[in-house]
Amino acid sequence: MVRVAILGASGYTGLELIRLLLRHPQARITALATRQAEAPHVSEVHPSLTGQLDLRMEQLTPTEISDRADFVFSCLPHGASAEMVEQLLAAGTKVIDFSADYRLNNLAAYENWYGVKHPNPERMARTVYGLPEFFRDEIREAKLIANPGCYPTSAILALAPLLREKLVSPDGIIVDSKSGVSGAGRNTKPNLHFPECNESFSAYGVGTHRHMPEIDQLLTSIGGTSVEVVFTPHLVPMDRGILSTCYATPTGKATAEQCLEALRAKYECEPFVQVRDDLPTTKDVAGTNHCHLAVRECRGRVIVVSVIDNLIKGASGAAVQNFNLMQGFPETTALHVF
Amino acid sequence: MVRVAILGASGYTGLELIRLLLRHPQARITALATRQAEAPHVSEVHPSLTGQLDLRMEQLTPTEISDRADFVFSCLPHGASAEMVEQLLAAGTKVIDFSADYRLNNLAAYENWYGVKHPNPERMARTVYGLPEFFRDEIREAKLIANPGCYPTSAILALAPLLREKLVSPDGIIVDSKSGVSGAGRNTKPNLHFPECNESFSAYGVGTHRHMPEIDQLLTSIGGTSVEVVFTPHLVPMDRGILSTCYATPTGKATAEQCLEALRAKYECEPFVQVRDDLPTTKDVAGTNHCHLAVRECRGRVIVVSVIDNLIKGASGAAVQNFNLMQGFPETTALHVF
Amino acid sequence: MVRVAILGASGYTGLELIRLLLRHPQARITALATRQAEAPHVSEVHPSLTGQLDLRMEQLTPTEISDRADFVFSCLPHGASAEMVEQLLAAGTKVIDFSADYRLNNLAAYENWYGVKHPNPERMARTVYGLPEFFRDEIREAKLIANPGCYPTSAILALAPLLREKLVSPDGIIVDSKSGVSGAGRNTKPNLHFPECNESFSAYGVGTHRHMPEIDQLLTSIGGTSVEVVFTPHLVPMDRGILSTCYATPTGKATAEQCLEALRAKYECEPFVQVRDDLPTTKDVAGTNHCHLAVRECRGRVIVVSVIDNLIKGASGAAVQNFNLMQGFPETTALHVF
Amino acid sequence: MVRVAILGASGYTGLELIRLLLRHPQARITALATRQAEAPHVSEVHPSLTGQLDLRMEQLTPTEISDRADFVFSCLPHGASAEMVEQLLAAGTKVIDFSADYRLNNLAAYENWYGVKHPNPERMARTVYGLPEFFRDEIREAKLIANPGCYPTSAILALAPLLREKLVSPDGIIVDSKSGVSGAGRNTKPNLHFPECNESFSAYGVGTHRHMPEIDQLLTSIGGTSVEVVFTPHLVPMDRGILSTCYATPTGKATAEQCLEALRAKYECEPFVQVRDDLPTTKDVAGTNHCHLAVRECRGRVIVVSVIDNLIKGASGAAVQNFNLMQGFPETTALHVF
Repeated sequence: MVRVAILGASGYTGLELIRLLLRHPQARITALATRQAEAPHVSEVHPSLTGQLDLRMEQLTPTEISDRADFVFSCLPHGASAEMVEQLLAAGTKVIDFSADYRLNNLAAYENWYGVKHPNPERMARTVYGLPEFFRDEIREAKLIANPGCYPTSAILALAPLLREKLVSPDGIIVDSKSGVSGAGRNTKPNLHFPECNESFSAYGVGTHRHMPEIDQLLTSIGGTSVEVVFTPHLVPMDRGILSTCYATPTGKATAEQCLEALRAKYECEPFVQVRDDLPTTKDVAGTNHCHLAVRECRGRVIVVSVIDNLIKGASGAAVQNFNLMQGFPETTALHVF
Repeated sequence: MVRVAILGASGYTGLELIRLLLRHPQARITALATRQAEAPHVSEVHPSLTGQLDLRMEQLTPTEISDRADFVFSCLPHGASAEMVEQLLAAGTKVIDFSADYRLNNLAAYENWYGVKHPNPERMARTVYGLPEFFRDEIREAKLIANPGCYPTSAILALAPLLREKLVSPDGIIVDSKSGVSGAGRNTKPNLHFPECNESFSAYGVGTHRHMPEIDQLLTSIGGTSVEVVFTPHLVPMDRGILSTCYATPTGKATAEQCLEALRAKYECEPFVQVRDDLPTTKDVAGTNHCHLAVRECRGRVIVVSVIDNLIKGASGAAVQNFNLMQGFPETTALHVF
Repeated sequence: MVRVAILGASGYTGLELIRLLLRHPQARITALATRQAEAPHVSEVHPSLTGQLDLRMEQLTPTEISDRADFVFSCLPHGASAEMVEQLLAAGTKVIDFSADYRLNNLAAYENWYGVKHPNPERMARTVYGLPEFFRDEIREAKLIANPGCYPTSAILALAPLLREKLVSPDGIIVDSKSGVSGAGRNTKPNLHFPECNESFSAYGVGTHRHMPEIDQLLTSIGGTSVEVVFTPHLVPMDRGILSTCYATPTGKATAEQCLEALRAKYECEPFVQVRDDLPTTKDVAGTNHCHLAVRECRGRVIVVSVIDNLIKGASGAAVQNFNLMQGFPETTALHVF
Repeated sequence: MVRVAILGASGYTGLELIRLLLRHPQARITALATRQAEAPHVSEVHPSLTGQLDLRMEQLTPTEISDRADFVFSCLPHGASAEMVEQLLAAGTKVIDFSADYRLNNLAAYENWYGVKHPNPERMARTVYGLPEFFRDEIREAKLIANPGCYPTSAILALAPLLREKLVSPDGIIVDSKSGVSGAGRNTKPNLHFPECNESFSAYGVGTHRHMPEIDQLLTSIGGTSVEVVFTPHLVPMDRGILSTCYATPTGKATAEQCLEALRAKYECEPFVQVRDDLPTTKDVAGTNHCHLAVRECRGRVIVVSVIDNLIKGASGAAVQNFNLMQGFPETTALHVF
């Protein structure tokens, strides 16, 4: 039984992570750390856990956390997370970091896009990006995992195999993504007030969203050639789900059919990626760790439609998948099926 | 052309009022007053007004308001509103007050339920309650109108005619109301954050909501006998609309059929109340100044189902209806049909 | 490993049941029966099961079903279900019936409310009603279970302990219930077309809903005195969840506090019923097999607010809970926590 | 007073048209024609019109319609509409056709995309496309108007000025559009059943939607050079609104700033198109005849975000705008502001 602590467990990814871990036969949640001074019972923060988990959220030092837990999931925001990570690792605790602190391998890009100093820049390029479909072996050996962003997961799973196989050009890729509102977190904001957000659809962060350099970096490293995408996120009036419509230009005589086959070949043995003939909806994967993909062709473009649950495959489910790999458990434990 | 000012125009009832008044051939909006120091253009606060109304929201004294406007709609919260009203009235400006400050006629009840001192208690019992279906003549003569609460409007229109006709007992009435989220206002709150509120239904303020004494007072005064209702509001994951399910016990040999006939007789000539055979939905009246009513019977109870749009018939539409009456305009101006 | 068949698996309760059973370590789904001639793969009917369950939906005789399965969950509609049940039981197959065919113990009431002849009327009064909180011992011994209706579950859990303890009067009880749209099933209907149903709230079946006699019967049998409730269902624009606002009159000097304590005492050891101080929302129990209860008092009435997920505790989760009891498995298998 | 008839008034565009015309001081609705044999009162089909319009929907011949009305709005589907139009025009009745029958000017394209024979092919190329922002003068003189499609309106207003000014290349344009569900009409379909559609986002008709050739044709004719766009529609779980994210490549040294200025210059005097600095949401234009536009730049692409209400500016509001032009009324009658 692995003793597990969660940092920053009061948000939506924290709740989802608790739900998954409560089902996990080899994990036991032993600490919930918070940065606030009050120590509310977890069921006060997440009423849906009433009667399910008898823990308080506590203000804990890294030492206290390492004493109580063998494994830490950090749901802290960027900057705050990296500060904790070094001390936890030094104490021998394994960490999966949900923040962006160790996703980018380039310090200048990090400081430019995130606007903060990085406390451990030398660790950036050495940290494994927790996307099992591409880095499974490295994840198995890792002590620290950078858990992927939600939008990047949907885009990379759709595009990376096509780039690696040179079926699409690295130029001119557009990722038009649409996300449910839980992706914006649990803090109130005027534009996320129910009557503002409900019955409304909007674009935001066009050309300025921090997931853009993350998508670039991974498509570049997996594809083996420099990629810069146009990334446009949108907000959908629903709780959860991401659909990314990815536009790319086939190379030479490559066809949509070949792209479809490349995706099928890549994901044939993957437990959590399904390539479909019909178009998937976000509801098809809601509450699951799955990604569904479909391919279409239109006027010289190949279009890959990709859907995930932003809180599961886009965050907490991916983290549990990584946890299973790092601990040597069957990869689908606590994730199969729903 | 009547020059009109709106106080506290940054909320949802303010926006709805502006929309209605922009359609009104005899009203011109000349001032939008706010309590904040910044003076944003109205289209910054309400982007849907872009290109429609070229006014800034300004911090204005009562004197400045009375100089610029003949008629004031106050969408300020209780307490804040009453402070302004006296000075506006003294300057000869007519006022429709959206707050609860002049709805209750009993000082002790006001101070008990609203927890503030009333600045003009002597005016409380003299102010006309702006429900034209019951107080049309008084409204025509009034200088100040207390615009009714949204829940009370839905409940009073359903029940008052039955009480007045002694068709139902004043005892044991239950008003189980359900409202869209715009009724909770435009300020962000954790429970109104989209992912908390969406896909969720809840009760709130059970037995403690401030509209309960307002319903009691009006049903008592119209019905001619003391009434105390059990009032239970609920929050529906939608923008607008109230449905009240009102349970009452018929007196003697009264039947649901007689109750239906009493409602039909009462509202036969009313432009904004329709009595229907089939059950109405909130969508049937969304965006309109109408109230739809239907009657059912079950095991010795008569059940009246009442629907309104909380922002229109429950607030801004009722205010424009009152404005029309006070100014001698046709009552349906700017309100008919949608 | 128990071999399990599901009849009528194409609807929402069928999908939810498959999801739960796929997590169940001692159940294996071996047959999905349908009444249609086509034999679609389950993932064509439920795309969210893509890659999760490799079965076709087939037209199967009772004999074929009994050959393949030890245990049958019937999600067929009333009438159709009873016809299958007798043959399955005769072949020694245990059955949990989701329909209303064996819920009512009174043939005349059944034929009156459901408008069909009952094929096995003699079995009606002998069938166990599958509400473990009240009939756990009987369920353990049963070969056939009538799985409770969704609305009745929410109402009975709220009110039955109060009636049994004589804390509330059997007279004048009102159950004002609100349900998400999945409760109306998967068949398209004009009023459930998205743009009709979305952003709208409505009452339906006021005084005529078939769950009313079911609530009456159970409250009467558990409470030990004749009960007839006024039951008013409403449709909430959301996928899942039921909230029932239950109004009752305390007897003698009974208080809301005593009612709260009676509920706490009754459910103290129940894994799936939580009594809370604050008011629950349907989201608090969405996706879970839990019922949350809270008590309020207003003007001589006690008000119990009850929330469940209509597809889980109100249908498929309750069925799995019953399955666990009938098979001697730990009662929370596959249900704890989410 | 113009006597107006509506054909096919039972759908969402029909209801919206009735609402707008009831506000129109110079229009009187004199006939509602339907293809069904029953003649329901309009309030049975549209309960929101209870007490507002006392007309039945009737099965009427073209002659009967022309006798009763000077002006016809046809909301019939393609194919059915063209059959009526010729007879109405022959009788001297002006017509605005909501269907696609007269939008395309190319018979082969029409028959290919719509799969039906065209009854009056010779009229196709002569019919004016009812987009006042580009064809105002022609609309004023027309007897028949092809009312634009909803998606095309959003895309053409965003892109046509940039193509005409040679600021963007005609090659490689992508229109990624998202629509509320009312755009799919009032007929029930499994994928539009509330629990299927709610809380779900999906792409559909990728590369095969009939609005694609309409967008091509108009951008080509206004832009003066052959354009073929990639058009990808998506379904948003909300009632109304379209947001189109339009990607184009600037020509030569053109900048996003110049594109913005070109849009401002083009629409400066247009009553219903606003060019904004901040990003618009569909809610900003819900219930209005307005289109809001904003421009962004990212990695060599210019991105125009365009929002309209699909039922108003995308259908019935545009039709009333055209009606006003054809009749010589002020263009904004019944449309300003909300």
